[in-house]
Amino acid sequence: MAIKTIAIISPGDMGSGIGKVLVQEGYQVLTCLEGRSPLTKELALKSGFQDTPNIASLLSQTDCLISIVPPESALSVAQEIAEQIQSANSGLIYVDCNAIAPQTALKVAEIIEGAGARFVDGGIIGSPPERKGLTRVYISGPDTSELLELHGQNLEFRDLGDKIGTASALKMCYASQTKGTTALWLHTIITAQSLGVLDALRNEWTLSHPPLWGRMEDNLPTVPHRAGRWISEMKEIALTMDGIGLAPDVFEGAAAMYELVDAVFNQKGYSEGPPILELLTMIENHLHHQNE
Amino acid sequence: MAIKTIAIISPGDMGSGIGKVLVQEGYQVLTCLEGRSPLTKELALKSGFQDTPNIASLLSQTDCLISIVPPESALSVAQEIAEQIQSANSGLIYVDCNAIAPQTALKVAEIIEGAGARFVDGGIIGSPPERKGLTRVYISGPDTSELLELHGQNLEFRDLGDKIGTASALKMCYASQTKGTTALWLHTIITAQSLGVLDALRNEWTLSHPPLWGRMEDNLPTVPHRAGRWISEMKEIALTMDGIGLAPDVFEGAAAMYELVDAVFNQKGYSEGPPILELLTMIENHLHHQNE
Repeated sequence: MAIKTIAIISPGDMGSGIGKVLVQEGYQVLTCLEGRSPLTKELALKSGFQDTPNIASLLSQTDCLISIVPPESALSVAQEIAEQIQSANSGLIYVDCNAIAPQTALKVAEIIEGAGARFVDGGIIGSPPERKGLTRVYISGPDTSELLELHGQNLEFRDLGDKIGTASALKMCYASQTKGTTALWLHTIITAQSLGVLDALRNEWTLSHPPLWGRMEDNLPTVPHRAGRWISEMKEIALTMDGIGLAPDVFEGAAAMYELVDAVFNQKGYSEGPPILELLTMIENHLHHQNE
Repeated sequence: MAIKTIAIISPGDMGSGIGKVLVQEGYQVLTCLEGRSPLTKELALKSGFQDTPNIASLLSQTDCLISIVPPESALSVAQEIAEQIQSANSGLIYVDCNAIAPQTALKVAEIIEGAGARFVDGGIIGSPPERKGLTRVYISGPDTSELLELHGQNLEFRDLGDKIGTASALKMCYASQTKGTTALWLHTIITAQSLGVLDALRNEWTLSHPPLWGRMEDNLPTVPHRAGRWISEMKEIALTMDGIGLAPDVFEGAAAMYELVDAVFNQKGYSEGPPILELLTMIENHLHHQNE
C-alpha cells in the first residue's frame, strides 16, 4: 500500500523542512499543533501542513507518522501515540527519526508494535532539506519498503537493512563525530582561556594546525542556541557506546559541556551565539562565579 | 651564567633528539644510562651523550637538567633527583618538560625548589627535532633567561612568562586537541564497527566529511605503540580541566580508550599498528571477549 498521507510530530526546523518537501511532492502532510508556540504554528502552516485537532483524529487520517522530537521525548511521544492507536490504525507505520541509542529505539519499537502498528527505525543526517543533497533519512527494520517509495526532490531515504537499531546506530556514530568534536574544541579553548594560554595556543596552531582556529570561529557561534538540544543526544551516544563495552565517559562529558553552554546562554535567550572570544569570556565568567 | 652542560633524563625518542641537537651546537650533554635498555643506551651514545655512573655524579657536572619522562613518572623522578641535590648544585636549573597538569608542575616545583635548585616549567610541542621547525620547547617561570640563550638550529625555546604552570597548561591544551581527537575517532569507529554501520558511515562521510576517513587511516595505525604512554597524559589533562571547573569525564574517557588500545596491542609487541580495519577487528574481538 503506497503512502499518501504522512503525519509529522513535531514540526520544528527539521520536521517542517521535511514536511514541506513532501507537500511539494504531492503528499498530504498532517500535524497536531495543539499547545505549540505561535512560531511553530506559523512555520507548519506556511510549509503546507494540515492541522488536526488531536492525535486520535490525526491517526485516523494518516498512513505513516514520523516522530522528530528532542531525543529525551522520543519514548514519551511514542507512549502518547501508542495510547491513541486503535485497531482501525493497524496499518500505521511509525517512523522514529530521533537521535536515540539503538537500545532506546528498541524500546520505542516495543511500545509501538505493542499497540498494533508497524515500526521503522530512522536517523536523519544533514540539515533541513532546503536544497538537493542536504538531507538523508536513513531507515532500517522489516517495514521500510513503503517509505522507500516516498520521494522528494531534496529528500533521500536510504535503507540500512531489516534490523531495528541500525539507523539509530548510524545516527549516533555520525553525531558522536560532529558534536563530539565541537565539545572537544570547547574543552580545549575554555581551558586555554582560563589558564591564560589562548594566544599562545592560537600561535602554535597557526604553525601546526593552520585551519583549526578558523573552523572553530565558524562553528562555535552556532552552538549556544543548539546546546540545550544536544544534552540528551550526547547521553544517548554514551548509552550506545556503553552497550558495546566502551566507557561512556567521553559523551557524558560532552553532555556536561552542553549543559554548561546551555546554562550560560539559554537563560539569556541567544538565538545565535556571540563571536568565539565573547563566548569564551562569558563561559569563563560563569565558571569563575561557580568556583567562588 | 650561561649553560654549558645539560643533563637529559631520560633519553627516549624526544630526549635523545633534543640532546643530539644540543651536542651538535657544542654543548656537553650528559645522562645516566644505568638500568636502561640496550636500545636506549645505543641511541643515547650515538646521539653524543656522555654517560655518568649515577645521578650524584651527573648533578655534580651539570648546569641544567631536563626531565623528559612518561607523565606518571614526573613526580617520582623529581623526588629522586631532589634527594641527590647537594648545596654544591644550588645553581642547578631543573626543567620539567613533561606532559603534566599545571597542578602537577607546581608539585614538582615544590620538590625541586625545596631541595635548593631552580625550577623551570616546560612543555614540548611537535615531534623530535629532526629538522628545523618540528619542535618547540615552551618554558615558563622566573628562571627561564639562561635557557632562552640555549640554541639549536632545529630547536626553539619559547618563553611564556614568569608563572610556573603556564608552559604545562599550553601543552595540556594542545594535547587535548590532538590526542583527544584521536580518542574521539576511535570511539566513533569502534562503535560503528561493532554495530555494523561502518560502511554506511564511511559512505556518509564521503558525502559530508570527505577528508575524515583518510585522516583516520593515516593517523590510527600509529596509535597502538603510543597508547600506553598517553594514558597518564589524558589523566593529567582531565586534572587540568577539573582545576578550572569543567567535568573531567571527556579526558578520563580518553584515558580509558588508550587503556583499551594498549591492552589489545601492547601485549602483542606491536611497534607499528596494523591498518585501520584490522585494528578495529582486533579491538572488536577484545570487547566481544570481555562482554561474554
